[in-house]
Amino acid sequence: MEKLSIIKIGGNIIEDETSLNNFLKLFSILEGNKILVHGGGKRATHIASKLGIESKMVNGRRITDAATLEVITMVYGGLVNKNVVAKLQALNIDAIGLTGADINSITSDKRPVKEIDFGFVGDVKKIANHSINKLIQANFTPVFCAITHDGKGQLLNTNADTITSQVAVGMSEIYDTSIYYCFELNGVLQDFNDKESVIQNINSEKYQALLNEGIIADGMIPKLDNCFDALNNGVSKVHIGNTAMLTKENNNFTTITL
Amino acid sequence: MEKLSIIKIGGNIIEDETSLNNFLKLFSILEGNKILVHGGGKRATHIASKLGIESKMVNGRRITDAATLEVITMVYGGLVNKNVVAKLQALNIDAIGLTGADINSITSDKRPVKEIDFGFVGDVKKIANHSINKLIQANFTPVFCAITHDGKGQLLNTNADTITSQVAVGMSEIYDTSIYYCFELNGVLQDFNDKESVIQNINSEKYQALLNEGIIADGMIPKLDNCFDALNNGVSKVHIGNTAMLTKENNNFTTITL
Repeated sequence: MEKLSIIKIGGNIIEDETSLNNFLKLFSILEGNKILVHGGGKRATHIASKLGIESKMVNGRRITDAATLEVITMVYGGLVNKNVVAKLQALNIDAIGLTGADINSITSDKRPVKEIDFGFVGDVKKIANHSINKLIQANFTPVFCAITHDGKGQLLNTNADTITSQVAVGMSEIYDTSIYYCFELNGVLQDFNDKESVIQNINSEKYQALLNEGIIADGMIPKLDNCFDALNNGVSKVHIGNTAMLTKENNNFTTITL
Repeated sequence: MEKLSIIKIGGNIIEDETSLNNFLKLFSILEGNKILVHGGGKRATHIASKLGIESKMVNGRRITDAATLEVITMVYGGLVNKNVVAKLQALNIDAIGLTGADINSITSDKRPVKEIDFGFVGDVKKIANHSINKLIQANFTPVFCAITHDGKGQLLNTNADTITSQVAVGMSEIYDTSIYYCFELNGVLQDFNDKESVIQNINSEKYQALLNEGIIADGMIPKLDNCFDALNNGVSKVHIGNTAMLTKENNNFTTITL
């Protein structure tokens, strides 16, 4: 099986021009088939507030009403995505920017209303892996933003981490697929106060031990659960660390396997 | 040679939900290979003004400063383009939204500063017709917005009519290519006060006569010149009329040939 790398970057990289340019340079020289997934971060909140749209949060999660979805479509799907594509073209990567609506690549269901109505938020249902593969086979590099659609004409806001793992799971039917989650830390840390204390390898057994010891806690638990979910569904490896993990010289990041 | 139709719609259709839905239904049932090109219209001006960005016009043409380019990228590349793609997917058209940066499809040069500095406006230089054809061959339907790039990382605002004719010229190396310019009138009119007085066929000779008689004047002259330019560079036919010209029942529109 040929290899495929799926790299996810978040708001901390997107929002800083220098970080973004540095990352894109690393991404451009990464060998083999690759897909980029980006979040949008605070830029949407910033533009929404300029447009007089209040960002509604419930338990730390954004409620996507119609006006907020418009802003997300503008900022993630337009401003961020197309600038990333243009920058990649300048680095000789034949990038193509996508939402889940494009080539029907990611279909989702609008999240059902229970205690909270999240609004126009989608939970991923189906990845059109063979359609995405047509782009890869044509030597194009897909760049996904965090927007999906319901197949009935409605765009939906969708978590970029979830898009990454679901696209990876879908593509793992065709490729030996690895995920790289780039974030601000060097990896999963043994000691949160020591940024260098990276746990380089985690498997299911080790994960259980780290949970028991309380070393992995709070916000890291859903992140790691999401990683194991991807691994249990066909993804080969998940890497977590800062963008330098894309360079061959650096091996101080976390690799997660089953 | 296989046939390819390139359909352009402007602000009057984009801005009205009902018109847009009606048009997209017609577009979806149009037989054969097809490409859609859309303008953005007043929505960008409206959002720019909400964001406190003044729209600067010189001789009726918009000056695209950095802030305006951001709005155009958000509105044309994000909001309008992605909603059109999602709507087409609901009509079973496997659409893919593109700027000229995506798959390096349309490269342009930033317009040189002479009497007027138009800002981030691009004049089309090169159409990557074989890359665009890879999408068509994969059964995807390209949907272009009016944004190109310079290949060095800079997005550029570009006239949608020009994009249409230049893409058509590029694709005419591979396909028997026709253009459909949809606008608010039924076609080129013999008498501007009689909306039914459509001139159904115009060729070079007839065009010259219409110019001499003063029947084609003002804003129609650059439009028609643009059509003949496309025809002189390989495009087979150019049709001008309202969206109903896409239906087989209607033949009351203008067809332009050499």
